[in-house]
Amino acid sequence: MNNRQIVLESRPVGIPQPQHFALRSSETVRPRDGEFLVENHYLSVDPAQRGYVNDENNYAPPVPIGAVMRAMAVGRVIASRCEQVRVGEYLYGWFGWQDYCVAAPAAILRRVDPQQAPLSTAAGLLGINGLTAYLALHDIGRPQPGDTVLVSAAAGAVGSIVGQLAKQAGARPVALVGSDEKGERCLADFGYEAYINYKQPLEEALKRTCPAGINVFFDNTGGGIADTVLRQMALFGRVIQCGTMSIASWVPNPQGPRNEREILTRRLRVEGFVIFDHVKRYDETARILSAMRAEGRLRDAEDIETDIALAPQALVDVYSGRNRGKKLIRLR
Amino acid sequence: MNNRQIVLESRPVGIPQPQHFALRSSETVRPRDGEFLVENHYLSVDPAQRGYVNDENNYAPPVPIGAVMRAMAVGRVIASRCEQVRVGEYLYGWFGWQDYCVAAPAAILRRVDPQQAPLSTAAGLLGINGLTAYLALHDIGRPQPGDTVLVSAAAGAVGSIVGQLAKQAGARPVALVGSDEKGERCLADFGYEAYINYKQPLEEALKRTCPAGINVFFDNTGGGIADTVLRQMALFGRVIQCGTMSIASWVPNPQGPRNEREILTRRLRVEGFVIFDHVKRYDETARILSAMRAEGRLRDAEDIETDIALAPQALVDVYSGRNRGKKLIRLR
Repeated sequence: MNNRQIVLESRPVGIPQPQHFALRSSETVRPRDGEFLVENHYLSVDPAQRGYVNDENNYAPPVPIGAVMRAMAVGRVIASRCEQVRVGEYLYGWFGWQDYCVAAPAAILRRVDPQQAPLSTAAGLLGINGLTAYLALHDIGRPQPGDTVLVSAAAGAVGSIVGQLAKQAGARPVALVGSDEKGERCLADFGYEAYINYKQPLEEALKRTCPAGINVFFDNTGGGIADTVLRQMALFGRVIQCGTMSIASWVPNPQGPRNEREILTRRLRVEGFVIFDHVKRYDETARILSAMRAEGRLRDAEDIETDIALAPQALVDVYSGRNRGKKLIRLR
Repeated sequence: MNNRQIVLESRPVGIPQPQHFALRSSETVRPRDGEFLVENHYLSVDPAQRGYVNDENNYAPPVPIGAVMRAMAVGRVIASRCEQVRVGEYLYGWFGWQDYCVAAPAAILRRVDPQQAPLSTAAGLLGINGLTAYLALHDIGRPQPGDTVLVSAAAGAVGSIVGQLAKQAGARPVALVGSDEKGERCLADFGYEAYINYKQPLEEALKRTCPAGINVFFDNTGGGIADTVLRQMALFGRVIQCGTMSIASWVPNPQGPRNEREILTRRLRVEGFVIFDHVKRYDETARILSAMRAEGRLRDAEDIETDIALAPQALVDVYSGRNRGKKLIRLR
């Protein structure tokens, strides 16, 4: 079988661009003992992928030049030489930007029940985006009834879920977005009670929209916007450092205002969150999210392309905020 | 009675200097209904006092020009028109840099038993310094056996206690200090197992001394040293933001390297600590510290002046690291 693969061709500094990748076709290899073969249905496009290819401090070694781009995907097992994995099973895991993947069980993030919800949700609402939204919001953010929860990239794959979860926790979710169109969608679809377009003078807008300060800041972007938000946090506020999408490159380390006095005087808790630390809780959390979805209490937002060749451009789009919800590439 | 008072004469930007203060003598006023009169024995000199006089974002309104310098002190009640306070009682509270203070019960931080330990310890080891060391280390730092606990300003009023407490928790305390002399004292007296003089190339020294990374950073200083430490934290490390002594002024807000990626990828928790949030736990915590002291498990370090006129210079000395332990002014 012909296997189309997006491979890393050169190492980007900052946000990877289409020219850093190439589309390659190769013959699908067969699984060896202990391995299985997955036919990918949906490829995931995630801001965190920048970190997989850069030579920057990160939580995993970088993808080698010439290798298939590291990515999560949802697929069906079509061959198996592995006791734990059956042909016909659907899996969510590290299967890369390609049609077929030979993998070992360590690559599995979660087994997917295709009856539970549309298959695509396994990579978004019930995948790392929904899991991140749920676990980071509740573990670190701990929203209390009446709390103001500000979310950056609020119309994105994670933010669109955080708004709905914060609302259900009795808090007041406020969306931080780059366009009024996204803001309106946050109000209409994602549970937000207000939105702020960060292209207006931000400090004034925050003071007006969050007059009692911000109790929880779910930050997917970092950068100057986050610095301004930090200075409007309420006492004992929680900052979930979930992503740094707004920073184009960490080499050299960009400068910004020192924040230690804000952290001290406002008694903030700023905490980093990486979903891969919580693999053991995926199944349980996906069940919670899936039940909420089935009851109509949780809506997903997906933005699906159908051409594998567009995956690198889709990643660029995510960084520039041109996506509308979870970005996926459907292969079949 | 003549009451010598250190008053604020002009508003400093950054660290207050002796010329911002004046020594004034006035007649001691009498307590009115609900008030009492304290004769101060020890005046406290604390880095946080900068924040009491600056027009900077802080956790209390600034001391007015012409008013007595806000400070904690230990004293004896010599007159009372207040039911809750008896003549002869010893108190630790907001009694200012002066000989005598008319105060209301809200100014009391803790009632002091002079039999429990030398009176001076009420303002240091059993005062905000010891309370801060204990509560911030255990609440935020949560040192586990084997953890490396790095402490900035390790020979200071708080750091000298943190080292001993971290050691007793089974952790490995490492002192970050500005001189070898202070480092040696940290090893000899304050429980530290190693020290780093930050005047040497810091990154290499941290890597050498903390090869498995730093699990807990008890930070009293902030600034560029803290930025370097952050980049040597172990995964899931805790940073206690207890002070920002190394930053001379926050107006304008100084710049530094952005730290959000370090916080994210290392899954750090960075949390501000202000002891005045924990007033209800003072008595219980002071009893714990006092018992440890009585059993010879906790040593205090005091650096005592005896001239009230030297209080402003003593504060400058604290910021420049010229103190040797808790700086106090003894009045009688």
